[in-house]
Amino acid sequence: MNGIKALVFDVFGTVVDWRSGIVRAGEELGARNGLDADWADFADRWRGRYVPSMNRVRTGESGWKNLDTLHRESLEELLAEFGLESLSEAEKGWFTKAWHRLDAWPDSVDGLRLLRREHIIAPLSNGNVALLTSMAKRAGLPWDLILSAELVRHYKPDPETYLLMPTLFDLAPEEVMMVAAHPSDLTEAAGHGLRTAYVHRPLEFGPDMEVRWPDGDFDVEVESIIRLADALK
Amino acid sequence: MNGIKALVFDVFGTVVDWRSGIVRAGEELGARNGLDADWADFADRWRGRYVPSMNRVRTGESGWKNLDTLHRESLEELLAEFGLESLSEAEKGWFTKAWHRLDAWPDSVDGLRLLRREHIIAPLSNGNVALLTSMAKRAGLPWDLILSAELVRHYKPDPETYLLMPTLFDLAPEEVMMVAAHPSDLTEAAGHGLRTAYVHRPLEFGPDMEVRWPDGDFDVEVESIIRLADALK
Repeated sequence: MNGIKALVFDVFGTVVDWRSGIVRAGEELGARNGLDADWADFADRWRGRYVPSMNRVRTGESGWKNLDTLHRESLEELLAEFGLESLSEAEKGWFTKAWHRLDAWPDSVDGLRLLRREHIIAPLSNGNVALLTSMAKRAGLPWDLILSAELVRHYKPDPETYLLMPTLFDLAPEEVMMVAAHPSDLTEAAGHGLRTAYVHRPLEFGPDMEVRWPDGDFDVEVESIIRLADALK
Repeated sequence: MNGIKALVFDVFGTVVDWRSGIVRAGEELGARNGLDADWADFADRWRGRYVPSMNRVRTGESGWKNLDTLHRESLEELLAEFGLESLSEAEKGWFTKAWHRLDAWPDSVDGLRLLRREHIIAPLSNGNVALLTSMAKRAGLPWDLILSAELVRHYKPDPETYLLMPTLFDLAPEEVMMVAAHPSDLTEAAGHGLRTAYVHRPLEFGPDMEVRWPDGDFDVEVESIIRLADALK
């Protein structure tokens, strides 16, 4: 693993715990407005609309929309499904921005700090620039810079996203490592020549959903970002 | 000055001392290669080619080239003028990257740390993303994100640059403050609705060049980034 100059990170699920954050925001929203719902189910169904909503942009069915906009559109649909349309505009805005207020997994900040000493580190997320910046400020994620699908107006797994770090930093693809909890993201990155690190996040989808380790498909397979820093030493 | 949510900074001259850094690199290069030159003159003439080289891109005379590329092209011309063409390829690359290794003015890091507590802070520089990132890592500049002319492939003062922060963060232009040591940069930013802060850098062009204070043309006029943080409290 010598020769890695930069690492780019998937964020939702890999660096931050989106599910707990969205459930917590739903519970707060419900308490404040006297609304009752299964917020874990709400969170899963909101996340379930993520890939289909981006695919409408990727296929050209829709023009460019950033992730805040897609989250908001999905929220409107879900509120209708859950019979919660009575929410005020301000509350809908607040709930959409819950995706900016997600907590880091317990190892993320320390692991990123270690990696940052010897490498350039950046998110490479479908989250928009403002979302990733707010999240980093709140959660203390010590990125060197914010890279986002929004900067190339292409969502992962479009090639433009994986090539962003090599292009901007004049690096060979194999000098850049993609870090993700999702094998499909890593397989796509490897297809463009990037090195790959899988981080196991067994609780991403809640305690009832089993997450299996991949079978040695990637350059590094670890249980935390701190372990990744150890592996790259 | 209430209502400022984000600040964007000119970098060369405003946050870092380009002249001393380039002179120092020239002296090191000279000592290593047994070359003699007036490195202060060299630095001034290198910087003198900055605006004309960007204008060739801005007018369309040249396609997009990032600042590392423009710096390298200007360096080749200058080495010929100074009779220093014998430099190796490796030394030319090292000298070009001296623009990544500039020191912050003494108040910059502390001032940015103070501003960062309550605001989003980013460079808004004609420097390319890799240059600004390397510089920030080396000098400890605590940016929330890196904004660069390279991301919109337009150099300042093209409007796309000043509108980058308002667009990405869904802010009104008057919620964004441009910070610069150069009145022309601030006047252009004000023309697009941004607030303006002038930071006086009397030594930017060396001890023999007087830099005059503007006469109350800008929203804030201060002698350091720490004073700017005080003014925005």
